[in-house]
Amino acid sequence: MSTVSVPPPGPAAAPNGLQRRDAEATKAAILRAARHLMARHAHTDITLKTVADRAGVSAPLILKYFGNKDALFARVMSFETDAAALLDAPLEDLGPHMVRHLLVGQTERGADPVLRIVFAPLQGEQGDILRANFRTQVSDRLAVRLEGPDAGLRAELAVATLLGLGVMYGIARGSRLRATAIEDIVERYGPTVQALLTP
Amino acid sequence: MSTVSVPPPGPAAAPNGLQRRDAEATKAAILRAARHLMARHAHTDITLKTVADRAGVSAPLILKYFGNKDALFARVMSFETDAAALLDAPLEDLGPHMVRHLLVGQTERGADPVLRIVFAPLQGEQGDILRANFRTQVSDRLAVRLEGPDAGLRAELAVATLLGLGVMYGIARGSRLRATAIEDIVERYGPTVQALLTP
Repeated sequence: MSTVSVPPPGPAAAPNGLQRRDAEATKAAILRAARHLMARHAHTDITLKTVADRAGVSAPLILKYFGNKDALFARVMSFETDAAALLDAPLEDLGPHMVRHLLVGQTERGADPVLRIVFAPLQGEQGDILRANFRTQVSDRLAVRLEGPDAGLRAELAVATLLGLGVMYGIARGSRLRATAIEDIVERYGPTVQALLTP
Repeated sequence: MSTVSVPPPGPAAAPNGLQRRDAEATKAAILRAARHLMARHAHTDITLKTVADRAGVSAPLILKYFGNKDALFARVMSFETDAAALLDAPLEDLGPHMVRHLLVGQTERGADPVLRIVFAPLQGEQGDILRANFRTQVSDRLAVRLEGPDAGLRAELAVATLLGLGVMYGIARGSRLRATAIEDIVERYGPTVQALLTP
């Protein structure tokens, strides 16, 4: 049984907003749990039960929302939604936007838009899917927005600066970085990223 | 028994250079094997035998060279030697030097000087040792060399750019990056790192 409280069904005439929000929150908790496990265990060692336990829901609820383990992990290994939000700014302000978006994601949503690529080595063949998704959904998607020479290379290097920030903030937990206000980091590091986008 | 060939002892009067080099090569292979496993398995799941199998040596040979598993991993989790080589350049040329050193390490020695910090989440309590070592041996050691305001923050951000490059090259395997000559990457990305060191 689910340990997440679900409100009683609302009137049939109107969609129940609260229930919908609960469902979205539960799905987000399941995705967060799957990501957490992906950073710590090989793909074959992760079961629906371990995801369910960490998310505080039942395994059947995961099946209800995502279908099966493969479908859940296909979702976790996609960068589609994250890349859309990460890249959602005009090119001339994209560097600072991406830095801010990443740090706000880590600090407020407990999720980094791109960091899970670093755990590809744990995931065996699934790691190659993760790499292919990362290339088409993040790097290439950024590259087509850039002008001038070596756009593809500059896109990969700009993404590298973001991955490094995510590692330093979220994994290495740099003490100076974590003691600095997000907007101050944006001011310092945004130009670093921007210089690769619009040199 | 060791599967690494060991030359017969040389004359007692003179140290046998070949034997010494073989021993160094074997130690390096053991350290590489331990690092490889650290990126894929929890600390508790790694045994001397799995390290020995991967390195192509016997477990007793690891004991001979390193003492025990804890001592081997203390060595793997130290950044002392790597940081010395990574930071071995005058400050005004340190950005390009670090970029070159990292890429040559990945491509020619199969080892990145700092990338293993990204696998801290797999290593439980050992991960905290890895983080503490990383801070004192890499970030802080760079910070003391920097002048001007926010030296500690700039050092962490400069290290972040290197971590990101290591992830993009060695884990995400960015196709443009890997199709580019190392010196061209140094030319493009060296100034990115340098701008944080000497703004």
